[in-house]
Amino acid sequence: MPPSTTAANSKAAHRRFLAPFRGEALAIPPMWLMRQAGRYLPEYRETRAKAGGFLKLCYTPELAAEVTLQPIRRYGFDAAILFSDILVVPDALGQKLTFAEGEGPRLEAIRSVADLGRLSPEKTGEKFGKVFETVARLRQDLPDETALIGFCGAPWTVATYMVQGEGSTDQAEARLWAYRDPDGFASLIDTLVDTSIVYLDGQVKAGADCLQIFDTWAGSLPDTEFDRWVVEPTKRIVEALKERHPTVPIIGFPRGAGASSLWYVSETGVDGIGCDTAMPPYMMGEAFEEEEVVVQGNLDPLLLVTGGDAMDERVDEILELMDGKRFIFNLGHGIVPQTPPENVARLVERVRRQGDAA
Amino acid sequence: MPPSTTAANSKAAHRRFLAPFRGEALAIPPMWLMRQAGRYLPEYRETRAKAGGFLKLCYTPELAAEVTLQPIRRYGFDAAILFSDILVVPDALGQKLTFAEGEGPRLEAIRSVADLGRLSPEKTGEKFGKVFETVARLRQDLPDETALIGFCGAPWTVATYMVQGEGSTDQAEARLWAYRDPDGFASLIDTLVDTSIVYLDGQVKAGADCLQIFDTWAGSLPDTEFDRWVVEPTKRIVEALKERHPTVPIIGFPRGAGASSLWYVSETGVDGIGCDTAMPPYMMGEAFEEEEVVVQGNLDPLLLVTGGDAMDERVDEILELMDGKRFIFNLGHGIVPQTPPENVARLVERVRRQGDAA
Repeated sequence: MPPSTTAANSKAAHRRFLAPFRGEALAIPPMWLMRQAGRYLPEYRETRAKAGGFLKLCYTPELAAEVTLQPIRRYGFDAAILFSDILVVPDALGQKLTFAEGEGPRLEAIRSVADLGRLSPEKTGEKFGKVFETVARLRQDLPDETALIGFCGAPWTVATYMVQGEGSTDQAEARLWAYRDPDGFASLIDTLVDTSIVYLDGQVKAGADCLQIFDTWAGSLPDTEFDRWVVEPTKRIVEALKERHPTVPIIGFPRGAGASSLWYVSETGVDGIGCDTAMPPYMMGEAFEEEEVVVQGNLDPLLLVTGGDAMDERVDEILELMDGKRFIFNLGHGIVPQTPPENVARLVERVRRQGDAA
Repeated sequence: MPPSTTAANSKAAHRRFLAPFRGEALAIPPMWLMRQAGRYLPEYRETRAKAGGFLKLCYTPELAAEVTLQPIRRYGFDAAILFSDILVVPDALGQKLTFAEGEGPRLEAIRSVADLGRLSPEKTGEKFGKVFETVARLRQDLPDETALIGFCGAPWTVATYMVQGEGSTDQAEARLWAYRDPDGFASLIDTLVDTSIVYLDGQVKAGADCLQIFDTWAGSLPDTEFDRWVVEPTKRIVEALKERHPTVPIIGFPRGAGASSLWYVSETGVDGIGCDTAMPPYMMGEAFEEEEVVVQGNLDPLLLVTGGDAMDERVDEILELMDGKRFIFNLGHGIVPQTPPENVARLVERVRRQGDAA
């Protein structure tokens, strides 16, 4: 990676979270946790109630920044991740989105090329602007040593929600559309690629110094579909961002991709690979070595619910396995709401203590 | 495999479905489809209505045999699979089970060792007896050339439903119990191992000439948990069945296990491995060669919904890839209700035509 040239980047050079991307394997790996800002924290629940709903929280820079900062204050993670949602993109495109309390998202489903007329890529500015304002505010308020991760959902995963109209176990509607009318479905994916580039570019300009692309449903696709709807669109986003911001690392998280993660890494050009809970350790430890990629993962979030010795043992195992490698400690999936905050404190202490001892 | 010794086995020797297990790679691979008896068939819906519910259908030998035979009459598959449900085991153990129309299963959840007292392994005879009667009737009514597959759910997958009390996307309750109290959870798994052995043994004695173990949720576990709750219990079942019925092949289907499927095959001793939709072709075609295992899979069931050229192309690709190997053509997951029956006919024709040409 070329040396940083701007003042902002010169500060970023001192953030230990970014060291693995510069080729350094730290004795104490940098750490953050997916969904580290969330319902398991009482202060989050309070702020969310004040905002009057989840989407309002996402679009109110002062409050979104506040919940992003909460886990940093408590635990001193090496990186904060912008508090937002992957469905901000379809919402900004004009697809009606609601979150009912205790239920998942609901969208007015898009099922055909004709429905694509309901999307307005030229009108995303107002809603994206709120997110960029949150990022700028965060860069101001975060400790200098804390990195700030921006993110988006990958086009495939975002499309599964847009087409299904809600969460689903099998993403059947998007997969059926992709089989029946691949060119039509490609128009939706193209719109999402272009919009995601605008969205991530804006986050970097506002102060994000790392990006993560969440592909939650990457694992549901056969290989040819995986290539067309997961790998190719992600590659286009990575290329466009690399052109604009060559020093900003990008982490891909193709959840459930298993052995196909190797192909994903080599084809998309991501700088880091998020490993989910089911990724076997031999793969995390060895298989990515040839790819010169930073590995991130992969404690089971349910071990963070139970805590205790079982958690400690698994943490030690992961640290030992990844010792001497370019590694970021994280979970294999997001923190779940029933997680006791004191278990997170114990985890942070364990990772840092063990790193010390190593 | 030692040569067959009984009259039943001498007949079985002529069933082409079993040829791959004897080391033969057929030009036209044997085929059957998971959930080939099911809601996509109008005659199934009629019989189910007559039975007055799903569970009643499972426990009425005449009707369960009838729906098992329906897809054989229509499509002439090389194997029939006993019509039943993986939750027959907890139901026979005494855990209250209901299926509401249009919803998934509901069970009175078992969450601790104390709850295990509600299970009665000594009382499964009556309900299992109905299933064995169905198997015996089927062996009578099926064409001589058609193999009959018996099955059970793997202990891990059955346990996820017993502990959660319903289907779930993350199997959280079973995973949490396994972390919090591994010895207690092991008692539940042990009960399921023992009961599954009784259940499968009875199916073979009644006439099943192949067995499949469905592990739908094998993919949700980290490697150490996968080993303890998926691999070990399956190995014990396979060993016990091999002791009693050395010539009856056993297919394992650890859905979502990805690269861990190799480990699963080498440790459990299964004769065949079911590959899910996401299994990359290079793995299906090559990785299992050293293991001397029959490979089964893996057309996306949603391609059977769309049909047409997209389906044909993928079928041809799979057949070409598996040409010359010990292979059984199947889907990567069960047939979905919205599948047009004529697409199944087209698939059967394609597989058999292509095989001819090869």
